[in-house]
Amino acid sequence: MNATHTLRLKRLGVDTQQEFIVYMRSDCHICKSEGFQALTRIQVMLGDRTVIATLNIITTDLLHHNEASLSESAWQRLGAQEGNEITLSHLAPIESLSRVRAKIYGEPLNDLSAQAIIQDIAAEKYSNVHIASFVTACADDNLQLDEIIALTKAMITAGERLTWPKTPIMDKHCVGGLPGNRTTLLLVPIIAAFGLTIPKTSSRAITSPAGTADTMETLAPVTLDIPTIRRVVDKEGGCIVWGGAIALSPADDILIRVERVLDLDSDGQLIASVLSKKGAAGSTHVVIDIPVGPTAKVRSADAAERLRQTLATVGTAVGLSVSTVITDGRQPVGRGIGPALEAWDVLAVLQNHPDAPRDLRERALALAAALLELSQKVPVGSGYATATAILDDGRAWKKFMAICAAQGGLREPGRAPYTHTVTAPCAGVIDSVDNRRLARVAKLAGAAGLVFHTPIGSTVEKDQPLYTIHAGARGELDYTLAYVASQPDMIGVRL
Amino acid sequence: MNATHTLRLKRLGVDTQQEFIVYMRSDCHICKSEGFQALTRIQVMLGDRTVIATLNIITTDLLHHNEASLSESAWQRLGAQEGNEITLSHLAPIESLSRVRAKIYGEPLNDLSAQAIIQDIAAEKYSNVHIASFVTACADDNLQLDEIIALTKAMITAGERLTWPKTPIMDKHCVGGLPGNRTTLLLVPIIAAFGLTIPKTSSRAITSPAGTADTMETLAPVTLDIPTIRRVVDKEGGCIVWGGAIALSPADDILIRVERVLDLDSDGQLIASVLSKKGAAGSTHVVIDIPVGPTAKVRSADAAERLRQTLATVGTAVGLSVSTVITDGRQPVGRGIGPALEAWDVLAVLQNHPDAPRDLRERALALAAALLELSQKVPVGSGYATATAILDDGRAWKKFMAICAAQGGLREPGRAPYTHTVTAPCAGVIDSVDNRRLARVAKLAGAAGLVFHTPIGSTVEKDQPLYTIHAGARGELDYTLAYVASQPDMIGVRL
Repeated sequence: MNATHTLRLKRLGVDTQQEFIVYMRSDCHICKSEGFQALTRIQVMLGDRTVIATLNIITTDLLHHNEASLSESAWQRLGAQEGNEITLSHLAPIESLSRVRAKIYGEPLNDLSAQAIIQDIAAEKYSNVHIASFVTACADDNLQLDEIIALTKAMITAGERLTWPKTPIMDKHCVGGLPGNRTTLLLVPIIAAFGLTIPKTSSRAITSPAGTADTMETLAPVTLDIPTIRRVVDKEGGCIVWGGAIALSPADDILIRVERVLDLDSDGQLIASVLSKKGAAGSTHVVIDIPVGPTAKVRSADAAERLRQTLATVGTAVGLSVSTVITDGRQPVGRGIGPALEAWDVLAVLQNHPDAPRDLRERALALAAALLELSQKVPVGSGYATATAILDDGRAWKKFMAICAAQGGLREPGRAPYTHTVTAPCAGVIDSVDNRRLARVAKLAGAAGLVFHTPIGSTVEKDQPLYTIHAGARGELDYTLAYVASQPDMIGVRL
Repeated sequence: MNATHTLRLKRLGVDTQQEFIVYMRSDCHICKSEGFQALTRIQVMLGDRTVIATLNIITTDLLHHNEASLSESAWQRLGAQEGNEITLSHLAPIESLSRVRAKIYGEPLNDLSAQAIIQDIAAEKYSNVHIASFVTACADDNLQLDEIIALTKAMITAGERLTWPKTPIMDKHCVGGLPGNRTTLLLVPIIAAFGLTIPKTSSRAITSPAGTADTMETLAPVTLDIPTIRRVVDKEGGCIVWGGAIALSPADDILIRVERVLDLDSDGQLIASVLSKKGAAGSTHVVIDIPVGPTAKVRSADAAERLRQTLATVGTAVGLSVSTVITDGRQPVGRGIGPALEAWDVLAVLQNHPDAPRDLRERALALAAALLELSQKVPVGSGYATATAILDDGRAWKKFMAICAAQGGLREPGRAPYTHTVTAPCAGVIDSVDNRRLARVAKLAGAAGLVFHTPIGSTVEKDQPLYTIHAGARGELDYTLAYVASQPDMIGVRL
């Protein structure tokens, strides 16, 4: 079955969100002679690059005879040009799928099976249907400690792996779900100013209004290649860049794409995801922020404690010192939600403005303290004082400016032209905030977001401002207000 | 979030094998204002019909402003015409997905949750990723007896359900995997000639060279609507039609589509699949053929016995009398593999040709006997003699001709123009046959197939014919021979 065939590429420009699709005519000689059917998986070669793609059949004249097309992600992966000749062939069986089936049938993952599966996932050999099956088999408590370790190791080795000339390499992660929690932009300059190395990679928003990389991007370029990252870190001791631009633990990104659709997660998958990114980044010491609250990702102190223990154990097994800080996840951090508004909060803290959001400042200091103490470069108990001194005397702000300059230049975040303030329906005390719905309001407002004025415990009068929506366009603002009107209980006011 | 928008349909003709996809421009006002991203699920309305589709974004001028397109299956489901205006809106959350998650998290399915899930699957609300997750959660031994019953009931009620003016209604099913096993075409006329009602729906081939409906189609039309089926059965007492033309247990077809991609099955899923089709068809008495062999679907006597017991228990729970016949599944049945060649075998048995394949005849008689005895219209022990008499005296052949005439007219199966005979590499005794690979040879030969000359136990000389490939085109034959050359051990010859 080594028969191969060639077709000429025509760009249709279909964005299927990562999944590789090849489009072929039903009456093309390859479909006929190979017996390809829709959903068949096909190996597509262009020059020395290969992808595995799912077949979609074209029944109209969208493609001419001898033409084929690819989804945008496959097109880019192959570096294709209009008119290129691609070679198509039957896909050899994907051996690691038998290991997924074995896991489904109750056999635990081991180092070998985890590696086989993760390498094939990273190579995009699995369709979304296969990935969904694997994710489901690993959901809930279906991963034992040894399996989480095997999976984490496999994910670390399945992509690029950074190494650094000196250790320790410090890092930080927040187990998501809390709008405005931009402590990274404060912690990195504090740690770097102290003299430790902290090459921080961050993510962009997927479902949230802003990722750390999005917020940083309003202040400086974040899409840096590895040589540039090395130069920035070599010069300034730290960076804040978009991790998606470099292929650290690529299997993780693919798994997350499907986990999100399924709305499935588990401690095991979460830990393998977080620690594989850190391991692949060459980090040695990591502090992990676990916000706990009814609308945060982790909802109870018990769940946080279990997560803390497993993180520490798996961390040790893969060579990472992990320290965990459990924080208040009941409400947004700072005032801004959305990239630019969060950046303004960060600047206020760095510049020691009198009205800078204290909660953001205190969280960043607590995490910086934990990371300093984890490094054993400061005595236990003195991390907070050390971090505070670096922030208060301007060293952190100076270091932040230097990092931004090294990344391509500090710039000022934008301001949105349209605003609308939502006010309290009655007098009382703010006693709850639905993080998820508030984040949705910010997201609907487009690239801008909202400023949240009344944290839990605030006393408000009737018609006092609760939050102000910032929008880049009139239509976006109207659309956001329609949603707000449909969600009257998003912020709880106790009478 | 009830905002809706309209776009004009342009047919692109993309066959995605069932999954509903909606294609929209990235810069269209709906994508922008609704925040749709690739993989977002969208509700698409046309007139009074609605489908849930996954968004693929078009980044070229394939679509003009204000245009959208649909995958072929969605286009057909909506009964769309070029230029129709479709209305798009955000998808309300699919509540039953929380029940899938609960199952993954260890909560057994019950009647309510099975119904909620299966109804949404039948309504095509789940993407393939969601279905893969559900299938995985139900794989292996993850379904208890109560759950299989709940699932079967839910699948019966989630589509069309036939009722018949009189009982009993007889039926038959073979737990697949055995090439050439066309007993249905013999059993139906025997049972109908006896005077019982047997409205048989059969499937087309998916991965095998022929389904029963494909073989029957070489002899008579099989794509009949429900009123026509009723007329045929009313007149002749039986029919052999394609079940895919009527929506019996539509969820089953959707689950099978994904199970096949995952190569996952389990007794639970198999039983729910088989018995839901029978229940929806209005059957009351079912005989089930379980071929057992190393390359059949069921590979051991123990596995067959477990399956037999669970089939009987679930059958009773959903109101079906089930009788199981465990048969030899070590090699193909009859001589032909492929629709027309199998039809010739069937005709030879019905017409009592002296060289008709005895194995096919005997299997059909054994199954007919079991069904006659299950009906309690003949004494236990006399089913075989009754069935044999009906076949031998020509009543079965006469009934078969009458059924074909009622379905639209008996016709003669075709003969393929190209043949090639594969011979024994050495003298010896045939001691094994790889059903799956032999089926693949037949499938590669296109619409024709192969004739298998040497069942297990045959003594052969060197260069004696083992099987003859029949192909409709020279290219198909060459292609098939290339595969044959790569698989020397497909038929085992003991020296």
